[in-house]
Formats: sequence, structure tokens, C-alpha cells
Amino acid sequence: MTTNAIVPLHDAVLCQIGFVAKDADRVARKISEITGLKPGEPILTDGYEKARTQFRGNPTQARAKLIFFNMGQVSIEIIEPIGGPSTWKEFLDKHGDGVHHIAFTVKSTKAAADDLSAHGIPPIQSGVFEGGSYVYSDAEKELGVILELLDSTSG
Amino acid sequence: MTTNAIVPLHDAVLCQIGFVAKDADRVARKISEITGLKPGEPILTDGYEKARTQFRGNPTQARAKLIFFNMGQVSIEIIEPIGGPSTWKEFLDKHGDGVHHIAFTVKSTKAAADDLSAHGIPPIQSGVFEGGSYVYSDAEKELGVILELLDSTSG
Repeated sequence: MTTNAIVPLHDAVLCQIGFVAKDADRVARKISEITGLKPGEPILTDGYEKARTQFRGNPTQARAKLIFFNMGQVSIEIIEPIGGPSTWKEFLDKHGDGVHHIAFTVKSTKAAADDLSAHGIPPIQSGVFEGGSYVYSDAEKELGVILELLDSTSG
Repeated sequence: MTTNAIVPLHDAVLCQIGFVAKDADRVARKISEITGLKPGEPILTDGYEKARTQFRGNPTQARAKLIFFNMGQVSIEIIEPIGGPSTWKEFLDKHGDGVHHIAFTVKSTKAAADDLSAHGIPPIQSGVFEGGSYVYSDAEKELGVILELLDSTSG
């Protein structure tokens, strides 16, 4: 069944469904309405100086407003793009509101991203945040969705 | 925050991410490749006589090939539409492969679907299967995705 002995997500846990939204507050209100859950406080991601965001190989000042709902093993993340270019802005411009990614926790985002590349799923955006790092890998062609690799130990 | 005192998904558990795919076997092979997980045996849904599938208010003979991956609290379901009309076929024709729905287990699919309708999220397809029933509610406008309500006690 496999074309490559490396299994990029062999130790990974499906941990998040990421929505992109034009108005994160509106979508969060609707999710609260229908689930009764309260979201966390909105988070504003850092600019390039701190987040070191790279999109398609270039530094970008793109930021985002993030709102999270805890739903057990998985969280729902709502992402409102601020500025660009970014995978978030690109998705919003192309699709409007919708499911942007599915995230997996991994031991090393870089190693997993490299391994996914060998399976035809190349990285498109990466960055760091307080206590961790992420890579978005573009599985649009293979699966019809972006995969996010998340770790919370490296920075 | 709420416009309606009823909370349709107050007792619900996020249990599934549903992908629609032109070729479910191909997508399942790719997921196996990158995760190392083995899918369940493919399932062919029943025709109208057994599944009583309703799409946009009308009976339909639409069926689907389903392949599941267990990923803990959530499963990944890959759906290959067979015939139509159905929300699966409609999604594939419009978007190609991608995330079609997010599913929640509920006590009563009918009650939850009625409650979601009061929040602007109307049912678009329903049916029964061995040991349970489902409703797809169209949250495309509100959240950018379809929600599935699943129960495994009624039939």
C-alpha cells in the first residue's frame, strides 16, 4: 500500500479542525449558540519579527485573529486573516468561510513536514508561537484539505 | 450571545470528519501511507428501500462507498458518491475532493435537526443505517461546512 517506508504521521494525534472565517466573532457566536460552549479569549498572532511566518518560501507580515473551542481530543480553531499574503487569506479569497485544515500534533514539525513532502504533500506556510511551532502542508491535491503539523515543545 | 434558548448540540460529541472523494480507495491509500493506520473494510450504503435516503425533501436512490479510519474520539470517513442526487454528489461536482462535513453524536437526530433549523441551519439529507440514523444540516452559509447529526440507537 505504501510508496515510501517513512510514515510522516505515525506518532501523530488528530487535535484540531481549523476554520477560516471573514468574521471570526460571528462564527464563534454561532458555534456558541448551537453547542452551548464558550470559546477562549481571542488571540492575535504576532507579526514576522516574532512569528517568523513564511508563506510559499517568503517572509510575510500576515497575522490572524484566532478563537478556539475545546471539544475534547479536538479543538475547533476559527481563523480570521489579517493582512497577507498567507494560506488563510488565500483560502478566504478562494473559498469564503470554511474548513481550512486538519491539525495533528507531532514530535517535530520540521521532520514531519519533510516526510510529508516525500509523499507529495509540500509545506506552504510555517511559523512559531509562544511555546511551539507549526507547518501547514498542502494536501489539497491528495486529500482536498490542508494538514497542519503542530508541536508544543520547540519554538 | 444566543438568539434562541434552545441549544441543539448541547449534549453532542464531535465524532467524525467526513471527506467526499471521487475515488475513496485512492484517498484511503494516501491516508494509510501518511498515518500508518489501516482503514475498516469499505461499506456500501443501501438504496432507498432500506436507507430511506431523502435529499432536499425527495427520496433518492443515491448510495455511497464509505471507508473509515479510527483516530480516537474522531473518525475520518471517506465518502465516494454512487449515483445521485445527494449532498455527496453535489459537493463533489462543486468542490471536488474535500471536507464535506463534521459530525456530532446526538440523542435524537430529528430533534437536533429541528433545533438547528431554528438557528438558520436547515436539514438537506437524511437516512437510516443498520442501528442508527443521520441528518445532514446545511451550515454552509453560517459556518462554511455541513454538519452531520448521528445517533446509533434509533433506526
